[in-house]
Amino acid sequence: MTSLLSPDALETALRAIGEERYHHKHPFQLKLNSGELTKAQIQAWALNRYYYQCMIPVKDATILARMESAELRREWRQRILDHDGESDDEGGLRRWIALTDGLGLDREMVESTRLVLPATKFAVEAYVHFTGERSLLEAIASSLTELFSPMAIGARVTGMLENYDFITPETLAYFDKRPPQATRDSNFALAYVKDHATTPEQQQAVLDALIFKCSVLWAQLDALYHGYVAPGHIPPGAFDPAKDG
Amino acid sequence: MTSLLSPDALETALRAIGEERYHHKHPFQLKLNSGELTKAQIQAWALNRYYYQCMIPVKDATILARMESAELRREWRQRILDHDGESDDEGGLRRWIALTDGLGLDREMVESTRLVLPATKFAVEAYVHFTGERSLLEAIASSLTELFSPMAIGARVTGMLENYDFITPETLAYFDKRPPQATRDSNFALAYVKDHATTPEQQQAVLDALIFKCSVLWAQLDALYHGYVAPGHIPPGAFDPAKDG
Repeated sequence: MTSLLSPDALETALRAIGEERYHHKHPFQLKLNSGELTKAQIQAWALNRYYYQCMIPVKDATILARMESAELRREWRQRILDHDGESDDEGGLRRWIALTDGLGLDREMVESTRLVLPATKFAVEAYVHFTGERSLLEAIASSLTELFSPMAIGARVTGMLENYDFITPETLAYFDKRPPQATRDSNFALAYVKDHATTPEQQQAVLDALIFKCSVLWAQLDALYHGYVAPGHIPPGAFDPAKDG
Repeated sequence: MTSLLSPDALETALRAIGEERYHHKHPFQLKLNSGELTKAQIQAWALNRYYYQCMIPVKDATILARMESAELRREWRQRILDHDGESDDEGGLRRWIALTDGLGLDREMVESTRLVLPATKFAVEAYVHFTGERSLLEAIASSLTELFSPMAIGARVTGMLENYDFITPETLAYFDKRPPQATRDSNFALAYVKDHATTPEQQQAVLDALIFKCSVLWAQLDALYHGYVAPGHIPPGAFDPAKDG
């Protein structure tokens, strides 16, 4: 990039990245939505994605720790409250456990994260490290995949309820709460980057941060596809539906 | 683990992990050795593995920075010399470039690492972070995959020379130098962990560090297999042999 974009042109460029690279287009996601996956494959997805869910508040706390204004921190801390709730009975993480429970996975096994694919852990930890090591602007920009999540969640919930008899509205409770939270959060982050990316270099860094984050999500589904969809190559020590499902 | 192993029993346990989890058993590696891969698939392997090679001296410098004794640092610094050489014409990294050159890959593209799979970067960076964040004992233990590399290199070189007409001894120069270096380095690291893992908890940490490192190598081949071997799912933005090969 050589010239400065207007804030609205920056937004257009960010949305174009999402359209091309967000994981709503990943073959695993398309199979999940259209009823082509087995219960075992959906178990593997829910188990691995639990690790991502677990690390979201850690990622947000990493970003929070870098914000030097109370005003910014007041905005960002809400993300941690949403995921962690006020007690063990609530919050986004707890609602993800309703999904793994509903899929018949052992709760202790899920919460231990010991059967999660190494590739899931590597991708998620790359995200957490990114938010601690890059500029605050890039860390905030990396959250912008949430611009696209309400649309993906809509297709996912509709598809899963329609296509799998073991999926109920209760097991998908997580997704009820997320769209308004994601919209609120991504509106804030989008306004922030449009306001603070004031040089071509900063704008490129913002675009690259979103590309990076899309690759974090995409790589997780690649690993699930490789491990659990045909031909199926479960790495040593990872969740094996034949014995752990 | 509940009881303390003898140093030799610890070594036996480490070798058993390698036998089960080292990447010499990975389907991609077996296909590489037996002539079942295309030149494009081998290009993808060499390009991605270059990123791993690049980060090995960074990993070793991370470990070096944590060693408080000159005696230890004198041992460990040799690894950095081996990879970086005395000039741009030598060292392990340079010899890897002989391989990517021999495969017809553009050197600027390779050295930029811009077409490397995100999953490769995530796995390799997890390794670098591990060596900075865990105990020095675990960081050293994570290098013990080198115990198994001479055996794997032997099978790889023999297989590749036999099975691919575009592979010559010159392109595989990297592998000539590595077995004696790996043997020297892993003998040192093995003696160190046998000597310093003196509680059951430390021994378990050493075993877990080797399991972790095996998963770093395994995940890289999983990503290559998924991206470039049938059915082939190249992630957005990664090396595409049809246009980058």
